[in-house]
Amino acid sequence: MPTVAALAAPSAHAPFERTTIARREPGPRDVVIDIAFAGICHSDIHTVRDEWGAAHHPLVPGHEIAGVVSAVGGEVTRFAVGDHAGVGCFVDSCRECENCLAGEEQYCLRGTRYTYNTPLPEGDPEGAWTQGGYSRQIVVDEDYTLRIPDSLPLDAAAPLLCAGITLYSPLKHWGVGPGTKVGILGMGGLGHMGVKIAAALGAEVTVLGHSLAKRDDGIRFGATRYLATTDPATFRELHRSLDLIVSTVSADIDLNRVLGLLRLDGALVNVGLPEKLLSISPFALTDQRLSVAGSNIGGIRETQEMLDFCAEHDITPQIEVIDADGVDAAWDRVVASDVRYRFVIDVATI
Amino acid sequence: MPTVAALAAPSAHAPFERTTIARREPGPRDVVIDIAFAGICHSDIHTVRDEWGAAHHPLVPGHEIAGVVSAVGGEVTRFAVGDHAGVGCFVDSCRECENCLAGEEQYCLRGTRYTYNTPLPEGDPEGAWTQGGYSRQIVVDEDYTLRIPDSLPLDAAAPLLCAGITLYSPLKHWGVGPGTKVGILGMGGLGHMGVKIAAALGAEVTVLGHSLAKRDDGIRFGATRYLATTDPATFRELHRSLDLIVSTVSADIDLNRVLGLLRLDGALVNVGLPEKLLSISPFALTDQRLSVAGSNIGGIRETQEMLDFCAEHDITPQIEVIDADGVDAAWDRVVASDVRYRFVIDVATI
Repeated sequence: MPTVAALAAPSAHAPFERTTIARREPGPRDVVIDIAFAGICHSDIHTVRDEWGAAHHPLVPGHEIAGVVSAVGGEVTRFAVGDHAGVGCFVDSCRECENCLAGEEQYCLRGTRYTYNTPLPEGDPEGAWTQGGYSRQIVVDEDYTLRIPDSLPLDAAAPLLCAGITLYSPLKHWGVGPGTKVGILGMGGLGHMGVKIAAALGAEVTVLGHSLAKRDDGIRFGATRYLATTDPATFRELHRSLDLIVSTVSADIDLNRVLGLLRLDGALVNVGLPEKLLSISPFALTDQRLSVAGSNIGGIRETQEMLDFCAEHDITPQIEVIDADGVDAAWDRVVASDVRYRFVIDVATI
Repeated sequence: MPTVAALAAPSAHAPFERTTIARREPGPRDVVIDIAFAGICHSDIHTVRDEWGAAHHPLVPGHEIAGVVSAVGGEVTRFAVGDHAGVGCFVDSCRECENCLAGEEQYCLRGTRYTYNTPLPEGDPEGAWTQGGYSRQIVVDEDYTLRIPDSLPLDAAAPLLCAGITLYSPLKHWGVGPGTKVGILGMGGLGHMGVKIAAALGAEVTVLGHSLAKRDDGIRFGATRYLATTDPATFRELHRSLDLIVSTVSADIDLNRVLGLLRLDGALVNVGLPEKLLSISPFALTDQRLSVAGSNIGGIRETQEMLDFCAEHDITPQIEVIDADGVDAAWDRVVASDVRYRFVIDVATI
């Protein structure tokens, strides 16, 4: 049984500790990835700190994983040793329900097997719970492994596996393209990917930031306008002008005011997961046949499409690479929204 | 200036009084309709009782209007004296905004002119506010007048102008047809039309009633199943099985449990207008890329399509015809949900 170095959270609020975790011997359809970089996602923090419930410690988070294939099982056909490969938010699903069959494994009706903190079958060689990418190696079925195009640097590719697909999927699902007017609510790790991808899809992009502090970045990433939600003039200027707003914020904001920015048949899509209930006025929806929706990452096929799209359009997140010793401090900065725009752990330092 | 007999609410909570109101001399594009029947809609009550704000008394409600054309202006081409005609929830709109140009006048960006309690231009011969169908005659531009097919009885046709289109429009917009599994939440005046129309569109219809008291009616109207939201087994049986739920209820119900009945990409569409904010869990939406939406009646073109569809499929509401003297008592019964399923006023008794 291979054991690999990892960074584990021993409990909800303790600092990370270096440890080892078990990875399985590769089966015939498995790909072994030597992890080079792992992105830090706010979900890692929510999960470890038990803010979404049911955290199982010691917990190795990380679901933005990029590395190099170091071994493959005998039946693997699409990966070879030396290939750049990635793993996102899930490593398996039932493969039989209508959603899995539709290539939407992230909505598996029997329960997607997420990359960390998800139960494994009794007696699984890797233990009781999946453990994620803050570790030196991971073993994943090739059907759940992504190809990272060679033109994408591995460090900047890592956050695409969650932040990238989380924005790409709803932008595609709601038909964004030339002529579409898209609003991105919040420009953090998720939002800045939304700006870049929506602009590359040909949309006219407006960022709705809390303030104008990141305005120059937003314009550089491809936005046409960058307005502050703290300025009442924003709501007058944009009234009934947008087709789609993707909300990446968890903070308290009056969504009914935001709905006033949408045109007939517009949608406000949540990709963040605020802990509070959304308070929606039925009148605000009925007035222009609006929708409030949610979207959760993307399926394997669409994630691969996103990686290829990002390679073709030269889209990568803006990252800050850190060592393993810096993860605790980085988490504090993520919670304080003090990151431009994604931390990536150099896994060689674990 | 013609004056016509009408029933007016003198204030928010006083009984109706017989009065007269002014109707304009027909202009070249106007149709004069001698009203035969007017349906009683819960919106009439919300408006008169100031539950939605801004009620202007004395107020003549009524926006489910069916009658016979008694005169037409010189430029009217689509109506002739003796034709059966109807008027729904609005009598005009700006005709220039993108929504009006798209035939969605109910979403007019400059403000749809509703059939009652809506400001008229200063100096308008009909007064300061529009007055509705609890009256003997109405004068409407032909572009906002509906043809009532001869095969539909006028009394039963009246509620189609609001209750019918309110359900028809979202069922069509969300693509209901053979193979679609539709839930109708609440089977009152709106809901029972939803059952009939969705069944006629070829959908498999499930009614979600508060209890099973109206079960036999629901099955007779075309539902395959009728289940009670007060029975926890309902939520297990229907888990992730419906494509669309149209909610006609204003009462407190846990919408997040209802969202659990929807499949991937399903939508819960509100057509009622509860006074309270909707409390929606972001997780409930994100889990299966669900939407919560709103829909408001329908445009003129679609309302005509609905009337023709109902004639073709022999769909009419189940009504109870009352005299003018019975309106106050009927309103009490509407508020108590004690009507199967729509009151219609015989306007000749005003």
